[in-house]
Amino acid sequence: MFSNTAEYALRAVVHLATNHGAACPAAQIAEETKIPPGYASKVMQDLGRAGLVVAQRGPNGGFTLARRADEISVLEVINAVDPIERIKRCPLGLPSHGTRLCRLHRRLDDAIGAVEKVLGESSIADMIEPARAGSSAGCAFPIARESTTLRVDRSRGRVGKA
Amino acid sequence: MFSNTAEYALRAVVHLATNHGAACPAAQIAEETKIPPGYASKVMQDLGRAGLVVAQRGPNGGFTLARRADEISVLEVINAVDPIERIKRCPLGLPSHGTRLCRLHRRLDDAIGAVEKVLGESSIADMIEPARAGSSAGCAFPIARESTTLRVDRSRGRVGKA
Repeated sequence: MFSNTAEYALRAVVHLATNHGAACPAAQIAEETKIPPGYASKVMQDLGRAGLVVAQRGPNGGFTLARRADEISVLEVINAVDPIERIKRCPLGLPSHGTRLCRLHRRLDDAIGAVEKVLGESSIADMIEPARAGSSAGCAFPIARESTTLRVDRSRGRVGKA
Repeated sequence: MFSNTAEYALRAVVHLATNHGAACPAAQIAEETKIPPGYASKVMQDLGRAGLVVAQRGPNGGFTLARRADEISVLEVINAVDPIERIKRCPLGLPSHGTRLCRLHRRLDDAIGAVEKVLGESSIADMIEPARAGSSAGCAFPIARESTTLRVDRSRGRVGKA
């Protein structure tokens, strides 16, 4: 139901959210989140265009989140790379059709609306797993890191952590 | 969010539901529901394999619903041709991952579950528009027909109407 592109974008953004504001190059994001390297640059570019990540040039350059992780929804990330389309017109395209949908397409659109609701109410911060002490149960991605060596400038809209 | 194949299958099944049990050849279904002719046979075959439609041979042959329209859900039709997949394992495929999903994939799966709920609770009968008296507002597909010239055998599990 969700495309690989949406999956990769979500992995990348959740990864950045656990990176405590440190800039992360696309190649490193790809490696740490198992995104095929050919995809990572394109996905990060789309996320940048949507204003969700910021690219920082230079030797310590890379991507950071443009907003706090609790201010970015899962839905926004998906819509940045592979937008969820609501059904606005009858797909049959009959000239006699107005803008009101038939029952079938209204119900399909209801289902899409339900997806938007679940994912629009879920922030990227909600997606971060609490750090677990040596447990191997469950999915290990992504685990919030306990520390990082880089600090970034909060005044430039990036997320920092002491 | 829904594939063309799912859309075509739903149009075909809703069309049969408005056909009062009369057998309808694939070519006619394709024409009346604007399914590309190349798709119609494949879609009807998949619907037959899933036990949702029955093929009737002979000069008045064609497809009928295998069950009453109020006993077939929209979800069943979609699942017959392009199944909605729940997320059962972490798509990262790390060996250390168990069957428990991380928060991200659990939330994506919640969204898929919401779609299943909306569409699983919607019967094909619910999708039939009431016949409207000369109104051109809204989507005109599908309109329940007032009468039909063919009758089918109820004892063979098809839907008839006086």
